Amino acid sequence: MDNFIYQNQTKIVFGKDTENMVGSLIAPTYKKVLLHYGGGSIKKSGLYDRVIASLEKSGVDYIELSGVAPNPRLSLVNEGIALCRENDVDFILAVGGGSVIDSAKAIAIGVLYDGDVWDFFIGKKKAEDSLPFGSIVTIPAAGSENSVSCVVTNDDINIKKGMVSTRAEFAILNPELTYTLPPYQSAAGAIDILAHVMERYFTPTPDVGFTDRLCEATMKTIIDNAPIIMENPEDYNARAQIMWASTIAHNGLLNTGRLGDWASHHIQHAMGGMVDMAHGAGLAVVFPAWMQYVYKHDIARFKQFAMRVWDMDAAFGSDEDIVLEGIRRYKAFAQSLGLPTTLKELGISEEWIPKMAKICGRDGKFVVLEVSDIIEIYKLALV
Amino acid sequence: MDNFIYQNQTKIVFGKDTENMVGSLIAPTYKKVLLHYGGGSIKKSGLYDRVIASLEKSGVDYIELSGVAPNPRLSLVNEGIALCRENDVDFILAVGGGSVIDSAKAIAIGVLYDGDVWDFFIGKKKAEDSLPFGSIVTIPAAGSENSVSCVVTNDDINIKKGMVSTRAEFAILNPELTYTLPPYQSAAGAIDILAHVMERYFTPTPDVGFTDRLCEATMKTIIDNAPIIMENPEDYNARAQIMWASTIAHNGLLNTGRLGDWASHHIQHAMGGMVDMAHGAGLAVVFPAWMQYVYKHDIARFKQFAMRVWDMDAAFGSDEDIVLEGIRRYKAFAQSLGLPTTLKELGISEEWIPKMAKICGRDGKFVVLEVSDIIEIYKLALV
Repeated sequence: MDNFIYQNQTKIVFGKDTENMVGSLIAPTYKKVLLHYGGGSIKKSGLYDRVIASLEKSGVDYIELSGVAPNPRLSLVNEGIALCRENDVDFILAVGGGSVIDSAKAIAIGVLYDGDVWDFFIGKKKAEDSLPFGSIVTIPAAGSENSVSCVVTNDDINIKKGMVSTRAEFAILNPELTYTLPPYQSAAGAIDILAHVMERYFTPTPDVGFTDRLCEATMKTIIDNAPIIMENPEDYNARAQIMWASTIAHNGLLNTGRLGDWASHHIQHAMGGMVDMAHGAGLAVVFPAWMQYVYKHDIARFKQFAMRVWDMDAAFGSDEDIVLEGIRRYKAFAQSLGLPTTLKELGISEEWIPKMAKICGRDGKFVVLEVSDIIEIYKLALV
Repeated sequence: MDNFIYQNQTKIVFGKDTENMVGSLIAPTYKKVLLHYGGGSIKKSGLYDRVIASLEKSGVDYIELSGVAPNPRLSLVNEGIALCRENDVDFILAVGGGSVIDSAKAIAIGVLYDGDVWDFFIGKKKAEDSLPFGSIVTIPAAGSENSVSCVVTNDDINIKKGMVSTRAEFAILNPELTYTLPPYQSAAGAIDILAHVMERYFTPTPDVGFTDRLCEATMKTIIDNAPIIMENPEDYNARAQIMWASTIAHNGLLNTGRLGDWASHHIQHAMGGMVDMAHGAGLAVVFPAWMQYVYKHDIARFKQFAMRVWDMDAAFGSDEDIVLEGIRRYKAFAQSLGLPTTLKELGISEEWIPKMAKICGRDGKFVVLEVSDIIEIYKLALV
């Protein structure tokens, strides 16, 4: 177990009707809000009206910036920064999923910086301060509402990059707001949450028994509850377990004292640059191939994963049999949610593999992968 | 799952040598520290010298107040409040276990209050603000370093009471500092940590699958690692797992969205008023009796506890057989750590039972217990 420092001050406001508290959360301290969101879905669902009503009731003034796309664009971030400055905005409220929250984070950090906000993404600057921001979450997947992660696409040069951001002041999580998610998005979200845990679970750090168990608790929760919401999208209990697990999966608790891997995320990102796909759908393709390629590196850990997360019994067979059946169960789980598990299903053909592998470059902490290894992983994922 | 609000801003600084960071954690913001501790153990171990060196190196001025007893006394709290005021103290540093940290919390809250700090303990005032404080933890058990709990004994009237306090600014957790704990104290600490989780685990709130699993992860960690430290007190890994689990067990995460019970804690407190005992030793006596008395109220939950926490197999027998064997395994675990599991071993005789039960009064949320129920529980714990 490594030494670590962990601090997470975000106020979590969880449960039914909690979006109506947003005005009272903001009003005591802030005067002018940038309300940031995507397209029309929050208007269609009525959420937009409730948010406005709550802000107005609390006497909070606001301006709006909508139009965040699934991969949030730098041009809109820059527009947001200018808007905040022109209007003396002192708080940013994101209403939506990870893309909206990431866009809000980039704006919040950019407003206080004299230079180009892209500097933070290319490592020229480190985010130390930001305008305060909070969110009302509508998609449990990215975990951005309580993480220090922020990914934006520079649409001038078509490059997607992440940075370590500041944390939100609050996150409002009402599971009912996720009832209307399309099934495919709920499924991709479940796999994304699992992936956030798996990237942390497969670690080179020894002696991490407690966080192993917290990771397993979180993965089991997703595995138990995702099939329920596919069957009944309005099952409050299952939606609630997934939503809280989604936040915990990516808020840093599960990697206290241990290194994560993160190669699979980057292998997926390179695919996302070739073909449009849900991040979680891409991860459902990458992970089985990655696991199959690297499991020999730490059979004991993969056996533990198979037994504790996928309910394998020691009597099933050899350690390797157990490991491979665990990987098979992960794959079957993704398929049961209606997700692809091969590059072919995503429309990615073999000849693109070298280019994607090169975009990834050397990667991974659990196992360090060279470009040639990544090529092999893509090949395993082909069909 | 209930609606909830959760916020926990304490900075956790975990790992080897982290006590040497204390000066640099305090220096940027604060000028004058009250260094608060118990007896001579931190001097004997050299910790005191390292803390002083770190404060001095960072140019932090300090005064000292030692002498915190295992049940922190109000008279010392009042002394601390006066000291802080006279010396313009702006930060309180507790070095020790739960008693020292609780004493520091009471001082921190009292300094900012015009009236009698006991008002907070008798419910006349609610703690909303405090002088900032932090701790260097030497005993993993009470979880006070990251909790909102604070228990103090009014030594004028010999009454022990708790209040909801504010949270610490930081908690320094170096597992090496726990190497020198006497085995009995390590054992009692393990049972105390388990108890903090069990009070939350046995809940009347339905549909709490995720936090159930987080609770089970924490309990398994204690059960796996406590025997290791009894065998080898300097096993860093086992000490580290227990120390981090101890903090998580009581920092509020495990009861997000669910009600806890807490009757067993109060049943133990009443015993502690009769005979001197380690809190954890008393809990090892109370819990088996409490479980035996209430399990029929929710067989499914007790079966889950037996199976997931005590590794029971469904094939073992009837649900009731499984539940009773789970309780037996808890008891055997406490005994294996060298702890008592009967009132007799603690020197508490049958005739005191009515008085202790009356001190408790009606209690519990998982099952509401009348005084007559508590009498029965004490009787079950007798021998």
